[in-house]
Amino acid sequence: MENFDFHVTTDIRFGKDRLSELSDVLNNFGKNVLLVYGGGSIKKSGLYDELYDQLNQNGNHVVELAGVDPNPRIETVQKGVQLCKENDVDVVLPVGGGSVIDCSKAIAASVFVEGDLWENFVIQRNYEGPALPIVTILTLAATGSEMNGTCVISNMDAQIKLGVHGKSLLPKVSFLDPTNTYSVNAYQTAAGSADILSHLIENYFNATPGTEVQDEIAEGLMKTVIKYLPVALDEPDNYTARANLMWASTLALNGLVGNGKKGSWSCHAMEHELSAFYDITHGVGLAIIIPRWMGHILDENTIPKFQRFAQEIWGVDEEDPKRAAEIGIQRFYDFLASCGIPMTLPEVGIQTEEDLQEMAHRAVEHSSISTKGFVPLNEDDVESIYRACMEDASFV
Amino acid sequence: MENFDFHVTTDIRFGKDRLSELSDVLNNFGKNVLLVYGGGSIKKSGLYDELYDQLNQNGNHVVELAGVDPNPRIETVQKGVQLCKENDVDVVLPVGGGSVIDCSKAIAASVFVEGDLWENFVIQRNYEGPALPIVTILTLAATGSEMNGTCVISNMDAQIKLGVHGKSLLPKVSFLDPTNTYSVNAYQTAAGSADILSHLIENYFNATPGTEVQDEIAEGLMKTVIKYLPVALDEPDNYTARANLMWASTLALNGLVGNGKKGSWSCHAMEHELSAFYDITHGVGLAIIIPRWMGHILDENTIPKFQRFAQEIWGVDEEDPKRAAEIGIQRFYDFLASCGIPMTLPEVGIQTEEDLQEMAHRAVEHSSISTKGFVPLNEDDVESIYRACMEDASFV
Repeated sequence: MENFDFHVTTDIRFGKDRLSELSDVLNNFGKNVLLVYGGGSIKKSGLYDELYDQLNQNGNHVVELAGVDPNPRIETVQKGVQLCKENDVDVVLPVGGGSVIDCSKAIAASVFVEGDLWENFVIQRNYEGPALPIVTILTLAATGSEMNGTCVISNMDAQIKLGVHGKSLLPKVSFLDPTNTYSVNAYQTAAGSADILSHLIENYFNATPGTEVQDEIAEGLMKTVIKYLPVALDEPDNYTARANLMWASTLALNGLVGNGKKGSWSCHAMEHELSAFYDITHGVGLAIIIPRWMGHILDENTIPKFQRFAQEIWGVDEEDPKRAAEIGIQRFYDFLASCGIPMTLPEVGIQTEEDLQEMAHRAVEHSSISTKGFVPLNEDDVESIYRACMEDASFV
Repeated sequence: MENFDFHVTTDIRFGKDRLSELSDVLNNFGKNVLLVYGGGSIKKSGLYDELYDQLNQNGNHVVELAGVDPNPRIETVQKGVQLCKENDVDVVLPVGGGSVIDCSKAIAASVFVEGDLWENFVIQRNYEGPALPIVTILTLAATGSEMNGTCVISNMDAQIKLGVHGKSLLPKVSFLDPTNTYSVNAYQTAAGSADILSHLIENYFNATPGTEVQDEIAEGLMKTVIKYLPVALDEPDNYTARANLMWASTLALNGLVGNGKKGSWSCHAMEHELSAFYDITHGVGLAIIIPRWMGHILDENTIPKFQRFAQEIWGVDEEDPKRAAEIGIQRFYDFLASCGIPMTLPEVGIQTEEDLQEMAHRAVEHSSISTKGFVPLNEDDVESIYRACMEDASFV
């Protein structure tokens, strides 16, 4: 196990009917609120009205930034910063999933950034300055952004999507009400769960030895997601399923399963290029890439961990290690497909291979996967993994 | 899953060679330090000297409270409070295991408590006042006190041992260096691990439905302890074993496996009376009680959870649920015995049954096990469990 810090100060308010606590929470920071959200789903669900009841009663001055897209854009961040400056905003209140929260984090920090935000904030990748306080109301179990200090921002003109990390980006308070995810449709529920699994898998397949605590927790959270995603798809209003998916999403990326390990994530680096070029759903891109990545890196060195994955997560009792590993990858692939996730690039609209080489180049350029991945990947590796994503896969 | 809060702000510094960070940490709070420790083990190990190098270089004014006993006494707390007041202490620095940290928490809070500390602090059970900042240096993997807001204090005259909880008791920073546990002897290593397992088990066997995240994490941490305790006993300097035991101990009682569940713990209520009457090692008392408690409450309602415990933790593949459950309890009992833990009360010096009835009375009186236990226990139940602790047990 590597040395690590764990200092995650977000105040989590988990469960139903907690919104009455919002006023007290906001009053710690001030009256001027930037409310950030995406499409109209929070209006349809009634959450928007419920929220305004609270904010009006509390005498908050509310400015709205609506229409935050999935894969949030630097332009939206700029718009939010302007609203904060014009309205002397005290606290940023994202109501949504990871994109809305990530965009809010970038806004909260960028208020304090001079000059060009892309150059002076995103490209820097690490941010050590201050930020406005962030209070989140989560409506999608997926990214874990509600309890970490990372945001991912896209520049669609330059076709670049990058993550930025900073301690001040950590939300002060996050409201996690599983009933707020009842209205998430099957596609986004499955994509969100694929995202949760991806965070667990990126940390689990790691070369640092002696990290049993982290690996056991990762396995436990994977099994939880695999148990409850099908339940949530069948019964969108199943509280137990939504609650376990939500809490698993938060814990999957708050440091519990990653701290104490070194090395860089491989599949997110590859997916970020897909999203940057084609603006696809992040969780779906990961679901497509991960099984091919697993197949690509399976060799005598990696077989033991894949065998453990097969046994512990998928109950594979095959004795031959390589065969067990392959069956585990196949089960994972089949599980994702069975949850309605499109499992090839053409199914998400990427019909040609023309950008694969350039994306492979950039995936290596924008990350350290060629030196610090679980198995280091060069451009040829990445291109080969992308090509395998063009058609159905079989691993056994 | 029940609604819950999770707000655990302790700044964990995990790993080797982190003590150079201590000066900066202390300087956030002030120069006057109350150093709290137990026996001479930190002098033998060299940690005491290393610490003074840091504190002297940093210009700290250090007051010492040495000799904190296991099951820390209210009198020691009073002594510490007096030292704090006389020396205008800014920060309390426990260097030790759970007893030293618990004593320090009680001191840090009691500085602000008027009048009799037992009456106005311990008996209250919940503390909402302020406390001096606490920075811990952990030397034993056991209680989890380094990352929670609870302390347990004993009044040996009245033979009472009670826990107090308060947000302000949460340590600000905790240094978790696994090498500081290399010198812990086999007996204390095993007792500490029994304590970790007890925290996981008390939360795991709980009547709240739909808590898969918590249960999976509890299982993962149990398996980690069961894997690494024998390694640490064989090779006291095995870093991986000590690191996993240490991090498991912290996560076992910081809310991760308990939040979202309601109901009260059963075995700690029973053990606290044993410690209060006979001053035995807490983890050993728990190791003796828990398997008998399991045997006592095993019935058709509880069999499913015990069957899962047997399968997931002990790999029992017996198909008959009751038989599987019994084998699981037996494996647990045998494991504890194989680690050198005395498994009967006479082995820890409790030769007669004369106090069992009174202890059973008090265990019920001092807790809510008769109404809110996983299986509610009345005085007869508790006495029967205590009696079963007088001789070797068999569960199959």
